[in-house]
Amino acid sequence: MTPTFDLLTIGNAIVDILARTEDGFLADHAIEKGAMTLVDAERAAAIYGAMGPAIEMSGGSAGNTVAGLVSLGGTGAYIGKVAEDQLGAIFAHDIRALGVRYGTAPLETGGPPTARSMILVTPDGERSMNTHLGACTELGPADIDEETVAGARVTYFEGYLWDPPRAKDAILRAAGFAHAHGREVAMTLSDAFCVHRYRPEFLDLMRSGTVDIVFSNEAEALALYETGDLDEAVRRMGEDTRRIAIVTRGPEGCTVVEGGRATRHPATRVDPVVDTTGAGDLFAAGFLRGYTAGLDHARSARLGAVAAGHIIGQIGPRPQVPLRDLPAARAVWEEA
Amino acid sequence: MTPTFDLLTIGNAIVDILARTEDGFLADHAIEKGAMTLVDAERAAAIYGAMGPAIEMSGGSAGNTVAGLVSLGGTGAYIGKVAEDQLGAIFAHDIRALGVRYGTAPLETGGPPTARSMILVTPDGERSMNTHLGACTELGPADIDEETVAGARVTYFEGYLWDPPRAKDAILRAAGFAHAHGREVAMTLSDAFCVHRYRPEFLDLMRSGTVDIVFSNEAEALALYETGDLDEAVRRMGEDTRRIAIVTRGPEGCTVVEGGRATRHPATRVDPVVDTTGAGDLFAAGFLRGYTAGLDHARSARLGAVAAGHIIGQIGPRPQVPLRDLPAARAVWEEA
Repeated sequence: MTPTFDLLTIGNAIVDILARTEDGFLADHAIEKGAMTLVDAERAAAIYGAMGPAIEMSGGSAGNTVAGLVSLGGTGAYIGKVAEDQLGAIFAHDIRALGVRYGTAPLETGGPPTARSMILVTPDGERSMNTHLGACTELGPADIDEETVAGARVTYFEGYLWDPPRAKDAILRAAGFAHAHGREVAMTLSDAFCVHRYRPEFLDLMRSGTVDIVFSNEAEALALYETGDLDEAVRRMGEDTRRIAIVTRGPEGCTVVEGGRATRHPATRVDPVVDTTGAGDLFAAGFLRGYTAGLDHARSARLGAVAAGHIIGQIGPRPQVPLRDLPAARAVWEEA
Repeated sequence: MTPTFDLLTIGNAIVDILARTEDGFLADHAIEKGAMTLVDAERAAAIYGAMGPAIEMSGGSAGNTVAGLVSLGGTGAYIGKVAEDQLGAIFAHDIRALGVRYGTAPLETGGPPTARSMILVTPDGERSMNTHLGACTELGPADIDEETVAGARVTYFEGYLWDPPRAKDAILRAAGFAHAHGREVAMTLSDAFCVHRYRPEFLDLMRSGTVDIVFSNEAEALALYETGDLDEAVRRMGEDTRRIAIVTRGPEGCTVVEGGRATRHPATRVDPVVDTTGAGDLFAAGFLRGYTAGLDHARSARLGAVAAGHIIGQIGPRPQVPLRDLPAARAVWEEA
């Protein structure tokens, strides 16, 4: 059977609430800079009450990745749980308006609301996320359908899905379907603190071959191997990953390891960095756009760098122009 | 009694849903370019279903004006009706986070939802608004409290308030309180189509002295006097307005008429124009910031031009940085 689309992503379906702030605000409110921190309803209300005026935009790591891939000309689907409320309608609208297939049943009224993340962006462009998972806590195996997974060249999920209680069962089900149909499974380690929380489980997903492709940044790779030596972490990640390990290094570019061979690829220079929200998500979008189209790793990494570079030059994690029209993206396809 | 703050604004409390589009989309969906068009729930759903991914930001003309005035260092309050829903919480958060006093009781769950406006921005930067009034239809005289009106140097309202059924009664009540306490009343004509709908009533508000200061753009002034001669419209508006008539003319600047004397003031040059949403609202914000601080019309008009020029260089109608910190805004205060 021919795959019917390039990428299925599965993640926490979140609407971002983005505001600029000063570093002092993070300190005053004990917000971990650069991290994704889970907050309960009470803490969410306290942070929201204290923060400045904001803008709202659909987000969620895996949602951003499929949005980016489609914006780059690929085809995709998404699975993630919202509630039947206004933020849920916004999330569903935005992802469907891109052409992404999205059919996850929303939680009925009366349950927890659609997830939101209060994202505070400091003058250096770094983002610090405070996420209230709400309806995402209800994602489970029943939300995974075999036909959608079977139709995707790659099924990609967030490490963040180990936070809600039953999403991991959904992922194991999806990975089973994917491999049964000869497809591949990819994951992102998501966040260094998330790696701290689920280190043995993430290593087991890799070593058991449940995932074929792993995306990570430097801090996540170091956390996974509890080391301060990045070369060691990259080498071990390469060994532990069934197919491809990709470690992004911000402005230093990325390292791709496959079959014991590591290659380095450059980042796109961005000045000024407006907001790093979505940088990793869009790198994965670009890389997977190339990978699922059969490009080599160098060109896939270039697409990743173009997409990540674009997103950190604007506010928020979803591209506001079609990425496929960017000259730097076109150039990747046009070269011999 | 000394006024306790500079400006009270009263308007339709709206969350904007902003998306870029092409001119063809407006034509295909019979959307009047550059206008504010009211839409019912069915039409709102149809437009939203057809439009691309969006971002959400608090809006509403008079809300934008008080937000701009506070961003320029003034003090303000706002009256407008939201529902007890997620968009209502966003609207209330954003305006309070600026330091604006906002205490209008939200509509309880079960009634119409918080108003939204689907704003389509074409490549030329022009915005076309499709507004579903929702909870705004419930604003009425009971939402006006004498103490708030009495505390404001100027009470400012939108012509758009003639669309919901009972808001005009709220305005007449507010104007009565304002004049009883020796304060002034200002209005904006809002939109040329709105002027077409309520032309005799707007003229009566002016000629009866219910309003002291009128803001208008060229198209609204021409619509008010059913003429194609702008000089005539400006002259007649000056005659009909109790105190000050201000006609904005886009990149041509503005004309201020007081006591039969008209003066011209320049606009701020902006290139590129990203999104004209909020241009008139922010001009009024800047002018009223100067006016309520006792500046002359030339300097007030400069503050208006700075605020309007800033807002059309970004997406959406609320400033994302404090306008008082802009060098051009500082310069207005620093000159001898």
